[in-house]
Amino acid sequence: MSTPRVVVAMDWGGTWTRTSVIDRQGEILWQMREPNPRNGTKEEYLSNAEKLLANAIEQAGGPVAGIGAAVAGPVEPTTGTFFQPPNLMVLNGVSFKALWEEAFGVPVWVGNDANLAALGEHYFGAGKESADKGRPVKTLFYVTVSTGVGGGVVDKGSVFLGANGLTAEIGHTLVDTSEAALECQCGRKGCLEALASGTGIERIARQRLASGGFSGSALAAIDADLVDSEAVFTAAKQKDPLALSILDGAVTALAIGLTNVLHLFNPDMIVLGGGVTQGLVKLDLLTQIDKQIRDRAMSELHKEFQLTSARLGDSVGLAGAAALVWDQLEAAG
Amino acid sequence: MSTPRVVVAMDWGGTWTRTSVIDRQGEILWQMREPNPRNGTKEEYLSNAEKLLANAIEQAGGPVAGIGAAVAGPVEPTTGTFFQPPNLMVLNGVSFKALWEEAFGVPVWVGNDANLAALGEHYFGAGKESADKGRPVKTLFYVTVSTGVGGGVVDKGSVFLGANGLTAEIGHTLVDTSEAALECQCGRKGCLEALASGTGIERIARQRLASGGFSGSALAAIDADLVDSEAVFTAAKQKDPLALSILDGAVTALAIGLTNVLHLFNPDMIVLGGGVTQGLVKLDLLTQIDKQIRDRAMSELHKEFQLTSARLGDSVGLAGAAALVWDQLEAAG
Repeated sequence: MSTPRVVVAMDWGGTWTRTSVIDRQGEILWQMREPNPRNGTKEEYLSNAEKLLANAIEQAGGPVAGIGAAVAGPVEPTTGTFFQPPNLMVLNGVSFKALWEEAFGVPVWVGNDANLAALGEHYFGAGKESADKGRPVKTLFYVTVSTGVGGGVVDKGSVFLGANGLTAEIGHTLVDTSEAALECQCGRKGCLEALASGTGIERIARQRLASGGFSGSALAAIDADLVDSEAVFTAAKQKDPLALSILDGAVTALAIGLTNVLHLFNPDMIVLGGGVTQGLVKLDLLTQIDKQIRDRAMSELHKEFQLTSARLGDSVGLAGAAALVWDQLEAAG
Repeated sequence: MSTPRVVVAMDWGGTWTRTSVIDRQGEILWQMREPNPRNGTKEEYLSNAEKLLANAIEQAGGPVAGIGAAVAGPVEPTTGTFFQPPNLMVLNGVSFKALWEEAFGVPVWVGNDANLAALGEHYFGAGKESADKGRPVKTLFYVTVSTGVGGGVVDKGSVFLGANGLTAEIGHTLVDTSEAALECQCGRKGCLEALASGTGIERIARQRLASGGFSGSALAAIDADLVDSEAVFTAAKQKDPLALSILDGAVTALAIGLTNVLHLFNPDMIVLGGGVTQGLVKLDLLTQIDKQIRDRAMSELHKEFQLTSARLGDSVGLAGAAALVWDQLEAAG
């Protein structure tokens, strides 16, 4: 029997769960999005997920090669066991792989959402685009700059998992070692996430405004509680000096963090995704980050990388989950 | 024909070239050490290396399974081509693999010395010791803290090479982002190498002494030109406050750099080697580094690592070169 031509992919995020049917080329043939149960019990979450998967399998209208799922938290790669997921603690210790393989009778693979986003961009996004142009990517480092900052690494076509699947946590590498460094939500000071995430940009803007001296800024005209990263990007587009200086700090923080990554992983492609990245792209600030990394790079060979924005948008988790299934099926022969 | 039971391993360093005959268990059956030609031409270096290898093959007294070589500089992994080696520029672009396979008729593999030191510790040093105790290592991060600071990563038993074999350059990750950060030999400021290497410790000691106010320190009693990292370690052993404060800075710098590594690579073993590490071990400062990393770690799962000192001393490069040959021969079946 030949391998079925589609997989079912799920992206189980903090607010929404997306399900889809995806083919070997990464094309999404069908998809839907459902809000998660709020403060559900373990049983409610699991029966909801099963119902969504059953529906997707039905939508496939024929045999599926497997199920892939991207989840927001650490996952043990062999058993697909969820470990202490910060936003879904009731699911700690659940092995999706065993559960769903029994329920649906097809192979199942589960991965962390940032890791799978990296895999999605490698096979179906920026990495594929480069390969199609004759420059196949060896080592891809993906960073999502959004509410928080996370990442994933794909090396020789597979996710680099480390000992427990907790790699590429660039959001919690230090980029400011000064005494005055900002506190991060993780409890430490000077993390990249505190300086460059949407939450970080918002906090910095509010602190600066509260400290006074910026009455001329467009941001000072907004109700303090409404100042967020989007407002900062809007003001920056109108060349507001305060907004530009805040984003300048985020750009430098990203360049420092990514230069460390460059020297540690020697990637030939760095992909930036997430809402904050979209804002930076519109202001042409990715060029700045690229330049600063090249200025800081320790050798000419390390400079042999491309920096680019993510191609897959909101469907990156689904694409990655599908890529994981195709990759694992092929590895198994 | 069964696989021969020994390999020839070479460690081509800045000053010495070591050659050896090593068995499958990593035991060194024979070895010798020769000074490199000084400012030699390309031909002199190459004929010297070939002579040393021929001698080692003769010492093996029978068939050898292959030749492995550790070299000080970037190496293209497939062709074993040397790239812009800082200390052996005349050998830029030379492919040892092709040369020696033709000369000796056995398979040859070449790798960067820090990468291969990581492989040596994984298979024959600290990693093996852990595996023998029932805790096989998944992801090992090796750091040499010596004249400079370099490193290597072994994941699932193989060196993590990145795009060009230039990974794990922890010495050139930023651990001090302040304006006053020390300059590094690489031209940037605040690199780990500037704060924790032997050269760095020496420079910091001399600068502090020159700035005055340390007349009571044992280091002030030494001719300024003779103050080096060894003198700092000796003074620290006698609880000299200046020496202790300098090493305290090195310990913190290493802890910051290694916490970044912990969050990016999620290793289950960190191995520290090199002369400076030996000094830190004698003062029980590895315990301090370990504690500081754990205090800074972002999650309990990230804390599931062992920090330990290297087991293989000066022969780590030879062991790693041998491990590379055995590993590649087995991968080829």
